[in-house]
Amino acid sequence: MAKKYNFYAGPAILPQEVMKKAQEELLDFNGIGLSIMEISHRSKDFEAVINTAETKIRALLGVPENYTIMFLQGGASLQFGMIPMNLLKGKKADYVHTGEWAKKAIKEAKLFGTVNIAGTSEDKNFSYVPENLKLSPDAQYVHITSNETIGGIQFSRFPETGGVPLIIDMSSDIFSRRIDFKNIGMIYAGAQKNIGPSGVTLVIMRNDLIEAGTDGLTTMLSYKTHAKEKSMYNTPPCFAIYIIKLVMDWIESNGGLAGIEKINNDKAKTIYDAIDGSNGYYKGTAAVKDRSKMNVTFRLPSEELEEKFINEAKKAGFIGLKGHRSVGGCRASLYNAMSLAGVSELTKFMKKFAGENA
Amino acid sequence: MAKKYNFYAGPAILPQEVMKKAQEELLDFNGIGLSIMEISHRSKDFEAVINTAETKIRALLGVPENYTIMFLQGGASLQFGMIPMNLLKGKKADYVHTGEWAKKAIKEAKLFGTVNIAGTSEDKNFSYVPENLKLSPDAQYVHITSNETIGGIQFSRFPETGGVPLIIDMSSDIFSRRIDFKNIGMIYAGAQKNIGPSGVTLVIMRNDLIEAGTDGLTTMLSYKTHAKEKSMYNTPPCFAIYIIKLVMDWIESNGGLAGIEKINNDKAKTIYDAIDGSNGYYKGTAAVKDRSKMNVTFRLPSEELEEKFINEAKKAGFIGLKGHRSVGGCRASLYNAMSLAGVSELTKFMKKFAGENA
Repeated sequence: MAKKYNFYAGPAILPQEVMKKAQEELLDFNGIGLSIMEISHRSKDFEAVINTAETKIRALLGVPENYTIMFLQGGASLQFGMIPMNLLKGKKADYVHTGEWAKKAIKEAKLFGTVNIAGTSEDKNFSYVPENLKLSPDAQYVHITSNETIGGIQFSRFPETGGVPLIIDMSSDIFSRRIDFKNIGMIYAGAQKNIGPSGVTLVIMRNDLIEAGTDGLTTMLSYKTHAKEKSMYNTPPCFAIYIIKLVMDWIESNGGLAGIEKINNDKAKTIYDAIDGSNGYYKGTAAVKDRSKMNVTFRLPSEELEEKFINEAKKAGFIGLKGHRSVGGCRASLYNAMSLAGVSELTKFMKKFAGENA
Repeated sequence: MAKKYNFYAGPAILPQEVMKKAQEELLDFNGIGLSIMEISHRSKDFEAVINTAETKIRALLGVPENYTIMFLQGGASLQFGMIPMNLLKGKKADYVHTGEWAKKAIKEAKLFGTVNIAGTSEDKNFSYVPENLKLSPDAQYVHITSNETIGGIQFSRFPETGGVPLIIDMSSDIFSRRIDFKNIGMIYAGAQKNIGPSGVTLVIMRNDLIEAGTDGLTTMLSYKTHAKEKSMYNTPPCFAIYIIKLVMDWIESNGGLAGIEKINNDKAKTIYDAIDGSNGYYKGTAAVKDRSKMNVTFRLPSEELEEKFINEAKKAGFIGLKGHRSVGGCRASLYNAMSLAGVSELTKFMKKFAGENA
């Protein structure tokens, strides 16, 4: 079976080198005669894995020393609740409403305090990133979703919050580009786009925010627990963390985040150029300035042609090109493990399809 | 490298057949050219995996139709909080205090209502299962820990609760034996002993309890969410669920739970006979009637000999025999994937060691 190109919005493909290494080691990790899945999380072999993963994340992302890196469970969806549960305390937070993911975060926050919608692109179906945010000086934090997988929009830079901690759901673009931790109170991400398999959530949080968390919470829902216990209060998702470690090795060998960012820029340029150069056959749905480099959303001249495009693409080995059911159209997700070659192949197919179905 | 015998309390070994199948399919699942880790959880290939896992769990455990099977995250530790959060509502629940795991469950419950300790074996260092429980007629539920990994004790049968829902943490003995769902309101288990890798928690809950859950909770902390969305409200831990499905195949091929139960009885008998037949060299720490078939705890004549035993066993390929740091001594965990042959080998080593170090 030929390797398929998976353009699904997630879980995403993983680097082939990572998958091959995982396969090689699956029955015998480090020569210990057991799988990484079959050993105690307190064993020195697993402790080396989680410690190395953490060290590499810190180095690659440039995480300052006053932030703690945690490996949690429950996906970004559990974070939507844990963040206000720990930090809102009946007070106010600013949320920028950019689509389905922001909406879910906002819904949970309302259970714990007042939500000020500091900006929204709801008026144009979440096709752009709002500017001129109406931030509250007394907000506990400002929450944004750095990349919206459905609308295909992305913050090209993060808002200036004037010292209020910025909390960013980076589930769909973490490790896709370099980031500046100035203003950042916390970033979090489900692993299954850019850093590993589903089942682990990366949380990077400034220590003063961890310490300021609400007391008296369920132990597992307090960031203090996980920070204090180094993500080992209970058994962590060991295999998923092991894969993250391998992905970090792969990012290193690709020039670190600067290298990855360049490849992602090239991939995005390749497909957006194909869209823009199609004489209007393909139309991008996001505002040009806010186009996501991770999720490229576009339409064809009709829904019938979109269906035909998706089906023929699938036959040609390009799977997962259907847009989210809530918006329709087409979507190509270009997470880190998607190669520039894969994107080039897709654009060739797009050009051919447009020629045959004009 | 020769295969080691892993007697760790968890994560435990997995059946070799399961690991080999997982390795074979790791790069190309079902001939789709992608790993099970690399495809959408909404794809038909993954949906078949989770549906099959659920169907097999229902069949193997004999789960009645009015119970819902869920695959959650966060381990039993998150359940310790979610259970009272959903079901206690400021009222009273009975908890049986049999050791470290029960204690953790009790601690979380106190955040949400009144806890009545219906029985405890704290007086004898949790070396037995309390009988003659003082149950409250007005309890919302009765909570027990069916097997305590540290003390090495196990409920051989579950208490009669007179219609009050029984909630059982079966993290360390689920799928080790047949169970009767009479009285049971809910069972839950972290996967990493008997059913899969860490990172997924199996919850089986009676539908009326799900429906009776507290309203207004964080979406991810309400059982209603996961029941309604069939464990797919957000991206589930796909790979861990896939391994559970393979483990269910393996249990089926070993005669189902009746077959597994017989093997586990034979394994337990083998090692307890070795302990009891050692003329007092090895001494079991648990009350004979409550001895765990999963975690066999024993002492040697001195701490020095225990240390020597653990070290020499390790050199001979038997790892993880050190007792929990809170109680010391030795412990052999005999989860499902440990073969009778592995236990026999250990008992041979024990006999030899006793002969040489009397």
